[in-house]
Amino acid sequence: MTTQQLYEQIQQKQSFLCIGLDTDMNRIPEHLLQTEDPIFEFNKAIIDATHDLAVSYKPNTAFYEAHGLKGWHSLEKTINYLNQKHPEVFTIADAKRGDIGNTSAMYAKAFLQDMSFDSVTVAPYMGKDSVSPFLAVKNKFTILLALTSNEGAFDFQTQQVGNEELYKKVIKTSQTWESSENLMYVVGATKAEFFKEIREITPHSFLLVPGVGAQGGSLQDVCKYGMNDKVGLLVNSSRGIIYASQGEDFAPAARAAAQKLQQQMAKLLHV
Amino acid sequence: MTTQQLYEQIQQKQSFLCIGLDTDMNRIPEHLLQTEDPIFEFNKAIIDATHDLAVSYKPNTAFYEAHGLKGWHSLEKTINYLNQKHPEVFTIADAKRGDIGNTSAMYAKAFLQDMSFDSVTVAPYMGKDSVSPFLAVKNKFTILLALTSNEGAFDFQTQQVGNEELYKKVIKTSQTWESSENLMYVVGATKAEFFKEIREITPHSFLLVPGVGAQGGSLQDVCKYGMNDKVGLLVNSSRGIIYASQGEDFAPAARAAAQKLQQQMAKLLHV
Repeated sequence: MTTQQLYEQIQQKQSFLCIGLDTDMNRIPEHLLQTEDPIFEFNKAIIDATHDLAVSYKPNTAFYEAHGLKGWHSLEKTINYLNQKHPEVFTIADAKRGDIGNTSAMYAKAFLQDMSFDSVTVAPYMGKDSVSPFLAVKNKFTILLALTSNEGAFDFQTQQVGNEELYKKVIKTSQTWESSENLMYVVGATKAEFFKEIREITPHSFLLVPGVGAQGGSLQDVCKYGMNDKVGLLVNSSRGIIYASQGEDFAPAARAAAQKLQQQMAKLLHV
Repeated sequence: MTTQQLYEQIQQKQSFLCIGLDTDMNRIPEHLLQTEDPIFEFNKAIIDATHDLAVSYKPNTAFYEAHGLKGWHSLEKTINYLNQKHPEVFTIADAKRGDIGNTSAMYAKAFLQDMSFDSVTVAPYMGKDSVSPFLAVKNKFTILLALTSNEGAFDFQTQQVGNEELYKKVIKTSQTWESSENLMYVVGATKAEFFKEIREITPHSFLLVPGVGAQGGSLQDVCKYGMNDKVGLLVNSSRGIIYASQGEDFAPAARAAAQKLQQQMAKLLHV
């Protein structure tokens, strides 16, 4: 997928919503627990109920790995379902990987080639050669952690390195790497005032924005400071949508929650 | 396992060798490719041939994930084999994970509880709440990336944050976190001169040291600057041992390569 195709999808759906498939066995409605693969059945129902409202889906690998082989199988089934039934959506493996070069190449193979995700999140701490193998995969995107939405973001990411914060240094440095046009960045919504300066450093990149909803970030503020002329934002919501109800009506309830966000987004696309 | 037990094992085996099970399907001897699970058969043979010479084994999860479900199964079989046949060895899931709190808790469950690794490597970029769920698991260790052995380490890790390098800030800050006694650190052998200052910050922690051998680090220098009164070092070798031969003699060849390192280590334990 190209960013132009992503932009067209955003225009068509009037949405820049990413739904986080952080599917937790303890929060899956009871009636699904009898099925052979409750995690996949849950994801499938959520996807079926929301795919016209969301442009992107983002399974976080931790929730799948927590169930070992069975969970890994659910992840594979989920991405296969997305790729086959809804090839227009932008898929993100929220894996936060990163290792020395030959090892990162293995992760790139796993997520971008074998499972055919459109993108994967990557941690920047190990520097250029830990990210390059992901960037080298054509027509795929590497979403680098810049400024995350959690409290721990202030431990290191916002520390001054020379005359700028570490997360800015990460963005600036990564823009000099080969195939940097394949980069996107994670920037948490809980720090909306930071978007203005980030857009000065990287006006054109798509930003993946967690932290709206459960974590307290404001959609309006994110758009005010973060939106560019090709939108340039994917705003993620996980728990607020997928656990809108834990009863048998979980899928229509998820749709209603997604629709609420989509309608706000549609307005913000026309400000 | 406690660090005291690890120290006793080091004394008994006269070794502080960690063997990296970075098992690459393309480098497995041909005669194993006919077996049902070549990766596990390879690991099993390496472990059987070296377990009296090494105190620790470290599968890097990337090499297993690269084969999807099948690879994940090989990883589970490998850790089960280690836990059952060689419960005295210190096992490391080299996973370099790290995410927001509730998500890191899922990774901690996967690696430290379900698979029962003794430890897991974690990336520090997302700060305290991304590491705490790992630290909270009793009698297990969190091995935080501090200064890695790759070229990209100089992109961010060695940048000045205030009046010290980022990797020092990571070590110092993490020492203030709850259950910090469960912390170890990754420090690359390729930067042996850095060990002196690291030991001033963290005199007692075990350091996991990659980069001896293939990546050019000197075992003597690492010991000179990094060893403490409880040894405090786990020196990793992966490719130099497990691919010492790619023929049918790969296991005895691995043993010979491991023995060479172990004999050097035995001498260094008595300097």
